[in-house]
Amino acid sequence: MAEYSSILLENAVDALAKLPGIGKKTALRLALHLLSEDGMATEQLADALLKMKRNIMLCERCYNISDSKVCSICGNPHRDENILCVVADMRDVLAIERTASFNGLYHVLGGVISPIDGVGPNDLKIAELVQRTKKEDIKEIILALPATIEGDTTNFYIFRQLKDFEGKISVISKGIAVGDALEFVDEITLGRSIQNRIPFSQK
Amino acid sequence: MAEYSSILLENAVDALAKLPGIGKKTALRLALHLLSEDGMATEQLADALLKMKRNIMLCERCYNISDSKVCSICGNPHRDENILCVVADMRDVLAIERTASFNGLYHVLGGVISPIDGVGPNDLKIAELVQRTKKEDIKEIILALPATIEGDTTNFYIFRQLKDFEGKISVISKGIAVGDALEFVDEITLGRSIQNRIPFSQK
Repeated sequence: MAEYSSILLENAVDALAKLPGIGKKTALRLALHLLSEDGMATEQLADALLKMKRNIMLCERCYNISDSKVCSICGNPHRDENILCVVADMRDVLAIERTASFNGLYHVLGGVISPIDGVGPNDLKIAELVQRTKKEDIKEIILALPATIEGDTTNFYIFRQLKDFEGKISVISKGIAVGDALEFVDEITLGRSIQNRIPFSQK
Repeated sequence: MAEYSSILLENAVDALAKLPGIGKKTALRLALHLLSEDGMATEQLADALLKMKRNIMLCERCYNISDSKVCSICGNPHRDENILCVVADMRDVLAIERTASFNGLYHVLGGVISPIDGVGPNDLKIAELVQRTKKEDIKEIILALPATIEGDTTNFYIFRQLKDFEGKISVISKGIAVGDALEFVDEITLGRSIQNRIPFSQK
């Protein structure tokens, strides 16, 4: 006999439970919530997921996900085209956009070099980045990759590939987070934040 | 400007974030997972949710959710029709079925009496329960409602409504959970488990 009294419910729970981080119990709760909803929530959810899956593409300039050939950031005339921020993932674009402290364009690699996960340089948009430095008028490239061994490896690899690039190449600074108490910061981060200290300014 | 570079993604995230316990961050993770999936997971999920929402009904005998007019438990000739377990919710049916210690039929009330939440006796399938005792050959009714004030209130109300019922009416026992160390059991539960003690048996 089926675990539930309804195959339809079981199918919905199974499909929900395939999502990352959603177990059977949560999936059942979500399915029962949708069942008990009076409105059009289920129809809207199904419709939004299908439309997203069928129509989203990668921006052909920066490889961020986009509804059109060129994404809304690359297509924005108010953004500074001379400065490029290289990130691993579109989530990183969101994170940096939320800081409201960067007004240039992005380049989304699609990951970092990670031999363990079978990700080599050719799986990432690194050649495309080199191409952009030749075609576009870029004055600075900021490498904003994760502070991991893989991120560092990717930084070094990109730096070598950009040997002909005449602009500035920088990496985002590592250090203690704003609001951190020193006693709770790990030693490596604290050590780096001392090595990479900057002149004190009143601002 | 939109928070994401894609309105389609934003719509999907918004729809997912309406689910209980799913925040914006989780919703984004789920949406990006579906986007990166090569297979048909998104189509299958949307399809399973829509089919469930459009086709599921309540069993016209026990009010459990069902794919057909009579659910698979009520329609199973191997179940004992003489014994009825009254539960608040279809999740309770699942929980009791998992114990494999009950082979009778169910009656799903759809909740418990709770004036604070605006749930009165007429919002529940209590009249339908009384009807069943008149039409069906029921010898015992087990009340398996939550061990809360609302559950107790509902037990008393049902008990009064069933004054003409000549079979046995029982409630599930409350006590310490199997595996519990006494020192961690709350006082009310431990007190009740002493009051409701049963004769010791070797079995």
